[in-house]
Amino acid sequence: MSISYVNGRYLTHADAGVHIEDRGFQFADAVYEVFAVQGGRLIDEAPHLDRLARSLREIGVPQPMAPAALKMVMRHLLRVNRVRNGGLYLQVSRGVARRDFPAPDGLTPTVVMTVSRQKPFDPVAALIGVRVITAPDLRWKRCDIKTVQLLAGVLSKTAAYAHGAGEAWLLDEDHMITEGASSNAWIVTRDKTLVTHQTDRTILGGITRQTILKLADEHGLNCVERPFSLAEARAAREAFTTSSTLMVRPVTHIDASQIGDGTAGAFCRKLIDLYAAYMKKSPSV
Amino acid sequence: MSISYVNGRYLTHADAGVHIEDRGFQFADAVYEVFAVQGGRLIDEAPHLDRLARSLREIGVPQPMAPAALKMVMRHLLRVNRVRNGGLYLQVSRGVARRDFPAPDGLTPTVVMTVSRQKPFDPVAALIGVRVITAPDLRWKRCDIKTVQLLAGVLSKTAAYAHGAGEAWLLDEDHMITEGASSNAWIVTRDKTLVTHQTDRTILGGITRQTILKLADEHGLNCVERPFSLAEARAAREAFTTSSTLMVRPVTHIDASQIGDGTAGAFCRKLIDLYAAYMKKSPSV
Repeated sequence: MSISYVNGRYLTHADAGVHIEDRGFQFADAVYEVFAVQGGRLIDEAPHLDRLARSLREIGVPQPMAPAALKMVMRHLLRVNRVRNGGLYLQVSRGVARRDFPAPDGLTPTVVMTVSRQKPFDPVAALIGVRVITAPDLRWKRCDIKTVQLLAGVLSKTAAYAHGAGEAWLLDEDHMITEGASSNAWIVTRDKTLVTHQTDRTILGGITRQTILKLADEHGLNCVERPFSLAEARAAREAFTTSSTLMVRPVTHIDASQIGDGTAGAFCRKLIDLYAAYMKKSPSV
Repeated sequence: MSISYVNGRYLTHADAGVHIEDRGFQFADAVYEVFAVQGGRLIDEAPHLDRLARSLREIGVPQPMAPAALKMVMRHLLRVNRVRNGGLYLQVSRGVARRDFPAPDGLTPTVVMTVSRQKPFDPVAALIGVRVITAPDLRWKRCDIKTVQLLAGVLSKTAAYAHGAGEAWLLDEDHMITEGASSNAWIVTRDKTLVTHQTDRTILGGITRQTILKLADEHGLNCVERPFSLAEARAAREAFTTSSTLMVRPVTHIDASQIGDGTAGAFCRKLIDLYAAYMKKSPSV
């Protein structure tokens, strides 16, 4: 039984609750982050906290505590739960108030953290790819803010699982792939260019996406940030998807179309290795 | 201190909570209804419950209890809180599970109800109009489902209040008004036609909207369901906005533009009276 954190208290997970009029529950008036933990290291902690601060600013919720205090709580929660490998989920909502659309001033934000334990990242196991389905991108027009308005992602990822796939890639009205339901979408073109959608309001700027861009650049791989179509993805040399949870994961099929030879391609293998090495260099918490 | 209902229990409101891993809190994986209560009557109970059932179906959440049981709980909650005039809020989420995007099978839905007491509807006070601002419609592409993904409405209605207005009307990319942040938008054209956006996936099919359409039709008013532009609204004879909470409310200004003579127009006055009479004919609970 794990321990979770709610508003200054460490609680048995089963007993951890928020008020029924928490605005996170009634209005999706909340933002969140998921941190990967590998070998006792918090991966990319600083950019995740920066993004959290940006999300809070964008929806006008004050920072609930100083970054140093937040980091201390995160470390304490990982320690009491003995998490060496897994994840830490952090959600901040605007707070509790009688239900009314306009955001009241002066609320105390609600802070919730939970942890999960998983097997350590295994670069060999990561070579096992996922199938993705495509689904219309039904989300709102500010996907750059990491809010809990995730129902479109829930429905498309539920459909993916029902079809024996592991992720849904989302299509805009021009049949361009924006990103996955909970990951960023990438292809490697015939001329060996890595392509992923540019960061704008139509996608979430993934932290793993940003790290992969940096690693690829450092190792001389050619990257372009631009939209790509479903047709281009189907004809691609390779495809893969990245997130803090999936890390780097080859995509073997998009709907019924096999990508490349249906296994992890050379670029994806390279990036898995680079990312595994990158995580090992992160500071221990 | 009011009593609220959570999953079979009647709780002091301050103590009423849901689990931190309720999918309503983490994924906005929840739908809701707001019922007006006037003179001990539940207004338009049946169409609200029908819409709830549709919302649940659309997101694949089972009906949490038989309609007869739900109605009994609603009545009991109004009784123990001695609500004669006010509202009843009902939210159903998919339930509690370890956080993961795909919706797990077999969850027990979470059912939450709260009540509020307000002054009875006063047709004279209702003549006091509201100013509305306009804001881009940032919402997702399934606004016909009444989900708690309400952050776009929260942000635009917060902006409205900051500008001394009472509601935000939302503009699509073609500068057509879809609806309000938490109400349906109406105009009366120069040739005395009532116009409101047709029900499709870009708006929520309001229950009060539907009742007003029926009352208008019964009383020989000419109604058309179609999109209308901001320019057309500014030049309209009258404008008003409808919801279960606002009932029928004249719109005096859209941004800086005064509508008509800046007071409740003849059509709006007529509809307020018709709606007040309609509510008085609803069965007592």
